[in-house]
Amino acid sequence: MSHVTDCNDDCDHSVKSKEFKLVQINGTWTRQGGDCGHSGRLSSATIFESSTANGLCWTVVSPIVFTYKIVQCENLLDPANDTLLFGHADNWKELKSHGKTIKRFIVIDETVHELYGDRITAYLKARNVTYKMLPLPTTEENKSMQLVMKILEEVHKFGIDRRSEPILAIGGGVCLDIVGLAASLYRRRTPYIRVPTTLLAYVDASVGAKNGVNFANCKNKLGGYIPPAAAFLDRSFLATVPRRHISNGLAEMLKMALMKHRGLFEILETKGTDLLESKFQTQGETETANRAQAASESTRIAIETMLEELAPNLWEDDLDRLVDFGHLISPELEMKVLPALLHGEAVNIDMSLMVYVARERGLLSPAETSRVIRCMQGLELPVWHGDCSLQLVRKALGERLRHSGGLVRMPLPTALGQAEIFNDTSDDTLCLAFQKWCEDLGAEHLPE
Amino acid sequence: MSHVTDCNDDCDHSVKSKEFKLVQINGTWTRQGGDCGHSGRLSSATIFESSTANGLCWTVVSPIVFTYKIVQCENLLDPANDTLLFGHADNWKELKSHGKTIKRFIVIDETVHELYGDRITAYLKARNVTYKMLPLPTTEENKSMQLVMKILEEVHKFGIDRRSEPILAIGGGVCLDIVGLAASLYRRRTPYIRVPTTLLAYVDASVGAKNGVNFANCKNKLGGYIPPAAAFLDRSFLATVPRRHISNGLAEMLKMALMKHRGLFEILETKGTDLLESKFQTQGETETANRAQAASESTRIAIETMLEELAPNLWEDDLDRLVDFGHLISPELEMKVLPALLHGEAVNIDMSLMVYVARERGLLSPAETSRVIRCMQGLELPVWHGDCSLQLVRKALGERLRHSGGLVRMPLPTALGQAEIFNDTSDDTLCLAFQKWCEDLGAEHLPE
Ligand SMILES: NC(=O)c1ccc[n+]([C@@H]2O[C@H](COP(=O)([O-])OP(=O)(O)OC[C@H]3O[C@@H](n4cnc5c(N)ncnc54)[C@H](O)[C@@H]3O)[C@@H](O)[C@H]2O)c1
Ligand SMILES: NC(=O)c1ccc[n+]([C@@H]2O[C@H](COP(=O)([O-])OP(=O)(O)OC[C@H]3O[C@@H](n4cnc5c(N)ncnc54)[C@H](O)[C@@H]3O)[C@@H](O)[C@H]2O)c1
Repeated sequence: MSHVTDCNDDCDHSVKSKEFKLVQINGTWTRQGGDCGHSGRLSSATIFESSTANGLCWTVVSPIVFTYKIVQCENLLDPANDTLLFGHADNWKELKSHGKTIKRFIVIDETVHELYGDRITAYLKARNVTYKMLPLPTTEENKSMQLVMKILEEVHKFGIDRRSEPILAIGGGVCLDIVGLAASLYRRRTPYIRVPTTLLAYVDASVGAKNGVNFANCKNKLGGYIPPAAAFLDRSFLATVPRRHISNGLAEMLKMALMKHRGLFEILETKGTDLLESKFQTQGETETANRAQAASESTRIAIETMLEELAPNLWEDDLDRLVDFGHLISPELEMKVLPALLHGEAVNIDMSLMVYVARERGLLSPAETSRVIRCMQGLELPVWHGDCSLQLVRKALGERLRHSGGLVRMPLPTALGQAEIFNDTSDDTLCLAFQKWCEDLGAEHLPE
Repeated sequence: MSHVTDCNDDCDHSVKSKEFKLVQINGTWTRQGGDCGHSGRLSSATIFESSTANGLCWTVVSPIVFTYKIVQCENLLDPANDTLLFGHADNWKELKSHGKTIKRFIVIDETVHELYGDRITAYLKARNVTYKMLPLPTTEENKSMQLVMKILEEVHKFGIDRRSEPILAIGGGVCLDIVGLAASLYRRRTPYIRVPTTLLAYVDASVGAKNGVNFANCKNKLGGYIPPAAAFLDRSFLATVPRRHISNGLAEMLKMALMKHRGLFEILETKGTDLLESKFQTQGETETANRAQAASESTRIAIETMLEELAPNLWEDDLDRLVDFGHLISPELEMKVLPALLHGEAVNIDMSLMVYVARERGLLSPAETSRVIRCMQGLELPVWHGDCSLQLVRKALGERLRHSGGLVRMPLPTALGQAEIFNDTSDDTLCLAFQKWCEDLGAEHLPE
């Protein structure tokens, strides 16, 4: 009856193993071998069994499906807008018609609370929500397990239903990452919702599954990959974000542009400075249809291209990742000069050098290289840094090699908006690129 | 080009959404609509897109496949046995032939360390392993995030490769649960291996994906569902387990027997006392082929039936769970009398009452009911408890109702080794069953 496969070395060496499907009949699951028709509910899990000299070996293969939503919207804090309360749910209308009291636990960045607390409170009151709002200093320095525990204590005190009352996180990437981890741990998984209020969080931290906190002086050393139930993106929060932090987010958008989307690159090249200036705001007197289009198209493309790369690799099992562009050298640099550079700034310096590597390898023309650098400068991002020495670059790439299965896996643009991953950049090429990079962009050439 | 589905209310209400598959070409993932042939690598993830009044909504559906092994073996600590070092790996032979230095971080229960530390050290030395052994008092009282952090600090100090150097946990369920959580958090997921040394951990805590720690006076309030890379089961550890803790594990085996396997019930009924007496040991003078068979068959069936129920529901998304038998009332009871009852003992009292409920509902005959109770007594498990009042039972079932989507989802045996889940046990039936249960088994009838 049972299907015998030639299945690898799995448990004991070179033994044959039996494959079992799982079928549920009357509430009881049973193993069934063979391909013959099953009546009952079939699971997507499989169990392989093989016998060893001493006993048995079972291999369980069980897929878990993660589903989450990313919703772009306007007027998230307008009491007439249901999104904040129901936008994560498939049965939105049904939930709304229940008329049950809604309960929400909300963690919010302290600064964001100062700026938007009143409007959020007004929204919750207008919607008759029973809530607890917890403003926290969610800064990079506080991004620790301690703050996670603090949130968990408050959540526990407040009391929420693990199935129907998602935890809301409102803030920058730090806030979203901390709350994501806390929610993932609570009762082994409590749904949470991300409301990003910085550009970096809008185009990056909100889009994937990752969460985490710093530990032992290492960035995001502890964490997980449990996606939120939903992320609600409202550009109007960006109005109050400091200009330098808009640039910071633009760096991650530029990353996606260089790797995957020439159209996005062209928007950033021609309208990037205006987007930075206006902070992606298109309401009010200065609004132009033109800018509205640039703001919505650029964010849409950034998210779509990011999603394309993240969705198939939600848990980062595949080590070849285009989204790692700008992230090979920057961790080392960021840690070295801490806190002088923001994440996106360090990423941009890394990308800038890599563009020179691409040029040295003949992947980009000198003209294309200059266009990219000019675009970066238009976004007010640093393109060179004195602490980014050749020694540091070599060390960072060595670390990379060690942690990614013996290959450096270097994403490089092969044209504007197109990329591949390379494992064969020689040290000579690296040196020549580095030298040219310093000549073109090094300290004396930069406006101070 | 893109396939338009009638996909639910997903994001905006009642809008149509487009479905995109993801295809990788030359290292770049792209969305593709429609069912037309794709060249390139197809992801199992899907992205749905719909437009809303204000912008867009993307729904990401991405399956992650968990794979883990459960290996029964003998002589795990024999230096000639490769299992402890390579048993988790598919490329066992390859790894072994590498001849590279092996590095392992090991967390071990303090008591287990006293008993087996020397043999484990001898194994590691004989195999030339670079290791750090961390004995910890992994008791229920210490089962906290604090101990998780302590482990993480030591892991970090020691330094391990996140891909090839799994963390080893050797001990009872508490140790395995704490280490599982620590490993899941470290670098967003570091592989770990479970080596159970109690019967409960052997047949239960090692088989599924769950881990966790206590928090705010609640059992396993924080945790996750990341399975180990492998669990290595060696019965010889049970030789030193206190008799009462063997009974404790037998309760979970009896659970699976009553729910799913008449054969296992019959083994426990006829040979349970002998297994308890011998602690599942079959080496040495008293060994009989008969007992060896009972020990290996009963553990095999317990694991297989457990796996059947856990593998299709690894993250407990389905709330109808036969493995919850004995776990409806016991949490309340366990907390109330803490630390008087071990987990399996509380579970057994719950099961005993439920058997009376099944009898009251006409699912079990009086004769079958007596057989089950006698079997429990043979395993030296308590079948009644004075603190398990009708009031406590009602309260516990009320809690259950609240936390499982408004249904009580009561697993009940419908024969010996067969079960279904019921949502319609009336309070009358419950009262009558409770009364009969007390009459038959209440204090005055129990040997003190
Ligand atoms: N999970 C992921 O996939 C992911 C992706 C990228 C970055 N991150 C993480 O995100 C963090 C960086 O995110 P960030 O740049 O948003 O930093 P952040 O959260 O520290 O926010 C930056 C600053 O902006 C302030 N702020 C936030 N919203 C504001 C608003 N609307 N108006 C005015 N001020 C506002 C904050 O108080 C803070 O001082 C890092 O810790 C990084 O690891 C995570
Ligand atoms: N993750 C899961 O799926 C799962 C399933 C069931 C139980 N659990 C958890 O497991 C825990 C209970 O497990 P447990 O019963 O193994 O408790 P435990 O880990 O506390 O061990 C019981 C006692 O036995 C001692 N001990 C362990 N191995 C020994 C040996 N070989 N010889 C002598 N003494 C030994 C320990 O020091 C301890 O004092 C609970 O915290 C429970 O939540 C988890």
